Amino acid sequence: MNETHVATLGTLDTHRRVTVVGAGVIGSSWTALFLAKGLTVTVTDPVPDMDRQVHDQLQRAVPALRALGLPTTDLDRNLRFEADLGKAVADADVVQENGPERLDVKQDLFARIEQAARPDTLLLSSTSGIRATDIAQALRQPERLVIGHPFNPPHLIPLVEVVPGEKTSQEVVERAVAFYTALGKKPQVLRKEVPGFVANRLQAALFREAVNLVVQGVVTESELDTIVTSSVGLRWAVAGPFRSFHLGGGSGGLPHFLEHLGPGLESLWRDLGTPVLDEATVQLLSGQADFGASVDELEDARDEAQIKVLQAVSAPSTLAIEPAQKQ
Amino acid sequence: MNETHVATLGTLDTHRRVTVVGAGVIGSSWTALFLAKGLTVTVTDPVPDMDRQVHDQLQRAVPALRALGLPTTDLDRNLRFEADLGKAVADADVVQENGPERLDVKQDLFARIEQAARPDTLLLSSTSGIRATDIAQALRQPERLVIGHPFNPPHLIPLVEVVPGEKTSQEVVERAVAFYTALGKKPQVLRKEVPGFVANRLQAALFREAVNLVVQGVVTESELDTIVTSSVGLRWAVAGPFRSFHLGGGSGGLPHFLEHLGPGLESLWRDLGTPVLDEATVQLLSGQADFGASVDELEDARDEAQIKVLQAVSAPSTLAIEPAQKQ
Repeated sequence: MNETHVATLGTLDTHRRVTVVGAGVIGSSWTALFLAKGLTVTVTDPVPDMDRQVHDQLQRAVPALRALGLPTTDLDRNLRFEADLGKAVADADVVQENGPERLDVKQDLFARIEQAARPDTLLLSSTSGIRATDIAQALRQPERLVIGHPFNPPHLIPLVEVVPGEKTSQEVVERAVAFYTALGKKPQVLRKEVPGFVANRLQAALFREAVNLVVQGVVTESELDTIVTSSVGLRWAVAGPFRSFHLGGGSGGLPHFLEHLGPGLESLWRDLGTPVLDEATVQLLSGQADFGASVDELEDARDEAQIKVLQAVSAPSTLAIEPAQKQ
Repeated sequence: MNETHVATLGTLDTHRRVTVVGAGVIGSSWTALFLAKGLTVTVTDPVPDMDRQVHDQLQRAVPALRALGLPTTDLDRNLRFEADLGKAVADADVVQENGPERLDVKQDLFARIEQAARPDTLLLSSTSGIRATDIAQALRQPERLVIGHPFNPPHLIPLVEVVPGEKTSQEVVERAVAFYTALGKKPQVLRKEVPGFVANRLQAALFREAVNLVVQGVVTESELDTIVTSSVGLRWAVAGPFRSFHLGGGSGGLPHFLEHLGPGLESLWRDLGTPVLDEATVQLLSGQADFGASVDELEDARDEAQIKVLQAVSAPSTLAIEPAQKQ
């Protein structure tokens, strides 16, 4: 525990100056977290009003940061803006890129970043779908780049998927993991590059069946949401699907579960729907999207509840093992 | 609020004597909840040691019931056992059936229950997979039966899927909803009978892709579990998939989300895996099922964390709307 703590402090000491490329929602949320953790942040973006955009998002993030126990006074004390990408990264220890989700744009950005940054700057991309292998083709030193894909919003949700490309060096992966860990995030290194990485693929798989059930008229969107928040959502906040089924197998664990309930599970798999998002389906789904309040109000309510749940799962256990921590 | 409260009390007053058919894990968990809510419970099962089984499970449920604020002193004061099914249901206001998951067994049980019980007894089945329409074919009054499928364990997880058969009367559905609501559960009526109902289908859909990712070597089981508990699990504990994507669409909500991210989602859908649980896969999955502690220890840790999350989501909001409540 003490060793981790020391390593943590060391990592932030040597990764103190961060440049955030792209001042959209993700970039601004990263900025809020970096600032609250005491880092010096330079934001760069070609849009003329990036100052306003970032300040707006910082404002929105303050209640969550405060609830997570982070300091929020004078949050923008160590924040500066620099429209010129080269100048913005020249002095950076870390670059967290959040540009548009297009391969040619990312390649162009990272080629320019590599040229202007120091040779030891850690290069991270927030992309949710483009492979490090592909972006790195534009780099002279492809081993320097790794994906650090957050689950939105980065200042609140712990997961960061760290996805190395074919040429990413082990040292860069380890630095990325140490950096995110020091920020209080939960980095998880993937062993292979797959479209959508892991969290979004799992989310897509559940959502496909959710769409199917609404299209079939089994439940409405609201009813389905209520079912999730009062069952699997609660479960998966504290134990993932494998551990949950391991416990579902009694003293025989997952092997017993698979032996006895595997056939039923396979027969459910065969019955799952494969809807498409054609015009009629999109219209049906959009027509039901009335959640009784404005998006802003719903977002505030969700974030407040999210913080309570985060506090609940991170509270110390009275038992020897903590389900969400120890693996 | 006051009206609901009165209706709630009224429902439990007129549904005070419950017979639990089947003394397994689900039946015992229902028994624990019914007793903690002040009901009188008769448990019936042909196994010779049902007393011991039920008392063991009651013991295990006590910490959870206490943490949920329910009284647990002399929990078995209003509990009795009756091996004879006919005698056990003769005086019941409600029957909650938890027998083996076989249609012929359920039909036989409910035919005998209907014969011995009063004509106004509420007939509920915990089945996770058999349709009320099919079970009710054995009844003279098929309109009396409705599925009340809990998410395990019933004393802890709020969801109860209420699934009427083709002939179930609206009055029976309403009584089932009122009964479960009075117990503090979150009943959700389904509009159609589908295999696996809703929660287990959604769970199966996510688990299928989880198995695929482990089989493909993208992550281990433990790594996948960590990804879930630090991202989608936390999200879905407070906002279901539709509401989450509604908020992901910014001020344009779900329609905007589907328009812009729908194509990417569909392309992910096409890439999802369709693994089978053949011997090699079961062996691979079972081989990774080491979660660093015994099943009992893991279960205690999970339940402790689960209670904290339940308390977090049920804590009153400082805002006008509560995401997990209002729809």
